[in-house]
Amino acid sequence: MKALSTEEKYLALVKKQNHYNQALALLGWDARTGAPKKGAGQRSEVIGSLSSEVFALSTSDEMKDYLSELEQTTDSLSDITSKSVAESRKDYDRNTTIPADEYKDYVTLQSQTETLWEEAKDKSDFEMFRPNLEKLIEYKKKFIGYYGKETDHPYNTLLDDYEPGVFVQTIDEVFSELRDHLVPLVQAVTEAKKQPKMDNLFSHFPKDNQQALSKDILTEIGFDFNAGRMDETVHPFAVGINPYDVRVTTKYNEQDFRVSLFGTIHEAGHALYEQNISPDLMGTPLCSGTSMGIHESQSLFWEKFVGQSYSFWERNYPLLKKHANGQFDNMSLDDFYFAVNQAKPSLIRIEADELTYCLHIILRYELEKALIEGSLAVKDLPHVWNEKMKEYLQVEPSHDGEGVLQDVHWSFGAFGYFPSYALGYIYAAQLNEAFTSTNPKIDSLIKQGDYAPIRNWMTENVHQFGKSKKPSEILKDTTGEGINAKPLISYLQKKYTSLYEL
Amino acid sequence: MKALSTEEKYLALVKKQNHYNQALALLGWDARTGAPKKGAGQRSEVIGSLSSEVFALSTSDEMKDYLSELEQTTDSLSDITSKSVAESRKDYDRNTTIPADEYKDYVTLQSQTETLWEEAKDKSDFEMFRPNLEKLIEYKKKFIGYYGKETDHPYNTLLDDYEPGVFVQTIDEVFSELRDHLVPLVQAVTEAKKQPKMDNLFSHFPKDNQQALSKDILTEIGFDFNAGRMDETVHPFAVGINPYDVRVTTKYNEQDFRVSLFGTIHEAGHALYEQNISPDLMGTPLCSGTSMGIHESQSLFWEKFVGQSYSFWERNYPLLKKHANGQFDNMSLDDFYFAVNQAKPSLIRIEADELTYCLHIILRYELEKALIEGSLAVKDLPHVWNEKMKEYLQVEPSHDGEGVLQDVHWSFGAFGYFPSYALGYIYAAQLNEAFTSTNPKIDSLIKQGDYAPIRNWMTENVHQFGKSKKPSEILKDTTGEGINAKPLISYLQKKYTSLYEL
Repeated sequence: MKALSTEEKYLALVKKQNHYNQALALLGWDARTGAPKKGAGQRSEVIGSLSSEVFALSTSDEMKDYLSELEQTTDSLSDITSKSVAESRKDYDRNTTIPADEYKDYVTLQSQTETLWEEAKDKSDFEMFRPNLEKLIEYKKKFIGYYGKETDHPYNTLLDDYEPGVFVQTIDEVFSELRDHLVPLVQAVTEAKKQPKMDNLFSHFPKDNQQALSKDILTEIGFDFNAGRMDETVHPFAVGINPYDVRVTTKYNEQDFRVSLFGTIHEAGHALYEQNISPDLMGTPLCSGTSMGIHESQSLFWEKFVGQSYSFWERNYPLLKKHANGQFDNMSLDDFYFAVNQAKPSLIRIEADELTYCLHIILRYELEKALIEGSLAVKDLPHVWNEKMKEYLQVEPSHDGEGVLQDVHWSFGAFGYFPSYALGYIYAAQLNEAFTSTNPKIDSLIKQGDYAPIRNWMTENVHQFGKSKKPSEILKDTTGEGINAKPLISYLQKKYTSLYEL
Repeated sequence: MKALSTEEKYLALVKKQNHYNQALALLGWDARTGAPKKGAGQRSEVIGSLSSEVFALSTSDEMKDYLSELEQTTDSLSDITSKSVAESRKDYDRNTTIPADEYKDYVTLQSQTETLWEEAKDKSDFEMFRPNLEKLIEYKKKFIGYYGKETDHPYNTLLDDYEPGVFVQTIDEVFSELRDHLVPLVQAVTEAKKQPKMDNLFSHFPKDNQQALSKDILTEIGFDFNAGRMDETVHPFAVGINPYDVRVTTKYNEQDFRVSLFGTIHEAGHALYEQNISPDLMGTPLCSGTSMGIHESQSLFWEKFVGQSYSFWERNYPLLKKHANGQFDNMSLDDFYFAVNQAKPSLIRIEADELTYCLHIILRYELEKALIEGSLAVKDLPHVWNEKMKEYLQVEPSHDGEGVLQDVHWSFGAFGYFPSYALGYIYAAQLNEAFTSTNPKIDSLIKQGDYAPIRNWMTENVHQFGKSKKPSEILKDTTGEGINAKPLISYLQKKYTSLYEL
C-alpha cells in the first residue's frame, strides 16, 4: 500500500472536520424545526462535544505540521488544496493565538450575556445589560490585539470574520454616499401624497395555503427539493449541510402573508447559492458561501429584485389569488404591487422595508465602529442611538427595548457582522446591473417565469466558487469594479420615485 | 485544579461516545423522515466518520487502560460505573478480537448482500442470493470463534448480541411448548365457522384524520410530546436519542387505518421505555433498552395487550368514529373488536397477527440455528422453509420472494435477532400477568383511560433500569421466574377461543 502524501493526509483531516460540521449543521437545523423542548440540555452537550472536536482538529499537531509543510510547496498543490490550506491557516492562527482559558471565559460571558440581553430587552433596561456589553467589547479589543493582522483600524479585524478583504475605509465611503442619498429619499416618500392601501394584505390567509404558495414559488425559481426541504420555524433561516442537502425554513403569519412568502424567497436565495456550489469543493473548507455579504446579496436579489418586482407579480398575482382567500379578487395588480413595496420609516430593523433597511445598518455600523475604536462609551450608546434614528429615519424609540436593545448580535459579541446586511443590498444591485448589462430583457424573463438564465448566471459567476473566490474577486470579475453604492441608489431612486410619484 | 480520577476520565470517554451516538441517532432519524434524496451519499460519509470515531474510542488505548484499572477496583466504584465498565469491556473485546481487515471485508460483504437481496427478492431468485449468504454465515462462524464465550452452542454467542443471558437450551424448550400449543389453535381458528367481517376496515380514512387520531391516542397513553415527536416514514421505527428526545414514526395507508394506528401504538411502546429510563444513566452505555426482547415486550404490551383489548375499544371506539369517515357508524363495537383481532395464517411475517406471528419466528429460529451449527446447508433452505410453513401455518409460498427471501435480516448478517420478536410476546404476557396479579382491575383502568398505574409500574419495574438490569433479572424480579411461555399461551387460548367461539 502506497503511503499517503501530506496533501492527501491534510485533505482527509479537513474532510473529517467537514463531516463533523455537517452533523453540527443538522443538529442546529433540528433544534429549530420541532426538536422536543426537554432535549435542549442534551442537545447542547452533543453540540459542545462535536464543536470541541472540530476545534481540536483545527489546532492539532497534525494540522500544524501539514500546514507548515504544504505552505512550502504551494506551487505543486491543486488550486483547491492551496486555497483550503489558506483557510485552515486562518483558523489555526485564530484558534491558537487566543489563550484557551481566556477564550473559555469569553464563551461563558457570551452565553450569559445572551440570556441577560433577553431579560434586559423585555424590561427595556439598558443599564442591566451595560456591564456585560462593556466586558464583551474589552474581550473583542484584546482578541484583535492577539490575532489582528490589519493595522489601519482595529475594526478591520472584525470585518475580516464576515467580509474578508473589505475595510473600514471603503465601508465609510460607500455607506456615507448611500446614507446621503437615502435620507432625503425616505423623507420624500414619507411626505408623499400618494400612499399604498394596505388593508387587503392583512386579511386571513390560511397557513396551509401559504405553504402551498411558497412551495410553488420555490419550485418555479429553481430550488431543488431533491437536494433540500422546507420546514416551519420561529426565526427563519437557511442552512447548507452540503450542496446536496440545503434546507430552508419559514414562519407563517395568517394575518400577513408577506412574512412567509418573501421570507421563503429570501431563504431560497441563500439556498440556491449553497445548492450550486461546485461539488468539487465538497469536504473542504471552501464549500460554503464566500462571505456574509455575498450570501445576503443572493437572498436579497431573489427577494427584492425578483420577488418584489412588477414583472414577478404580473406573472404570479393569479397564482397568489388562487391560493388566497378571496381578499385580492378586487385589488388591482398596480395597487397590490404598490402595497407589497410600501416604504415607511420604522423603529425595528427586522421589520424594515428595502428603502429604509440600510439606514438601520449604517447606524449600527457607525456605533459599533466607534465602540471598538474607543470614541464612544457604552454608557452613551442609547442616547446616540436615538439621536441617529431621528436624524436618519425621523423616528425615535420610546424605550430602549425598541431601540438599542432590539438586536441579539452584540449580546454574543458579533461585532463586524451588521455591515454585511447593507453590503448584501449593495452587491445585489451591482450583480443585478451586471446581469442586466448582458441580459437587458430580465423583466421579460421574470414575467415568463424563465429563471434559468438568471440562476445559471449566478451559478457561473458567484455560486460555484464557494469560498474559493473572495468577495472582491467576484465583484471585480462580474462588474469590473469594487464595492459601489451607485447601482443600489439608482435602483431605489427610480423605483420609489415612480411608486410614490415623487 | 485536582487531577481527574480514572473513573472520571472513563466516564468522560463514554460520555463522548454517547454524544457521538446521539448525533448518529439523529442522522439516522433524519435519513428516514424526509431528508433530501440527493444528500444520501454525503450523509453516508458523515455517518461513516462518526461511527469510525465511536469504534476508535471503544478500542482506544485510553479505553484499554481505564478498563483494566477499573476492573481491579470494582468495589470502590458506583454501581453505574461498574456496570458501564462491563458494557465497555464487552464492546472492547468484540471490537478488538476480530482482525480489522477481516471485519472491513465483512462490512463490505454485508452492504453488497443487502443490495443483492433486494434484487433477489424482487426476482424471487434464491440461487442469486445463496453464495453471499453462505459467505456471511462463514464469517459469522469465524467471528464466534474469535469472541465467543458461550461454548455449549455457537448460536449462544449470536443470541448474546440481542438477548444477553438467554441461551439455546431455554429457547428450544420455550419455543417448542409455544409451537405445540399454537399450531392446533391456529388450525381451529382457520376452520372456525364464525369469522370477522372485514370490509369496513378498508374504507377510505383520510391521512390527516389518522394523524390526529394517533396523536390523541399517544397523548392519552402518556407519550410525552415535550420529550419526543411523531413523523411520517416508509418503514416505521422509534428512536431514543436520549430519554428527553425519543421519536416515533408511522406510515399511513388510507385504505387500512390499522397500519398507522396500531403501528403508532407499537412504536409508542418502545418510546415509553426510552423516555422513562432513569436520567442518572444519561451519557453512559447503560442508557438504552436492556435487550431487543424486552424492548419488544413494551411495544407489544401497548399494541396488543392494551390497544387490541376490548376495554380499549369500549373507551376509544367513539374517538375512532369521530376521526373516521363514517364507515364505522353502523358497525357494532363487538364486530369491530373481532375485526381488528382477526387471526389468519399468512405468508408474510410483518403482516401477521398476534396469534400466528410467533410461528413465523419459531420457523426462522429453527432454521438459523441449524445453519449456524451446520446441520442445514444453505442450498436446502428454501425447501425446508416451505415444509415448515406448511407444517406450522398450513400455507405454502408460491415463490421464494414470499418465502425464504422475504426478510432483510439475514442479508446483513443479523443472525440471532429473530428470536427477540417472539421473546417480546412471551415477556409481554409475563409482565401483563405480573401487573394483573397486583392490579386485577387492569380492564377497568384501560376502559377509563387511566394508564398512569400501568405506565408507572412498567417504569418502576422495567424502564428506569435501562441496561443496568439484564432481561433475566427484570423477569425474575417482576414474575419470580424465568422465561415462561404459559402466560402467552393462556392469553391467546382464552382470547381466540372466545372470539372465534371454538
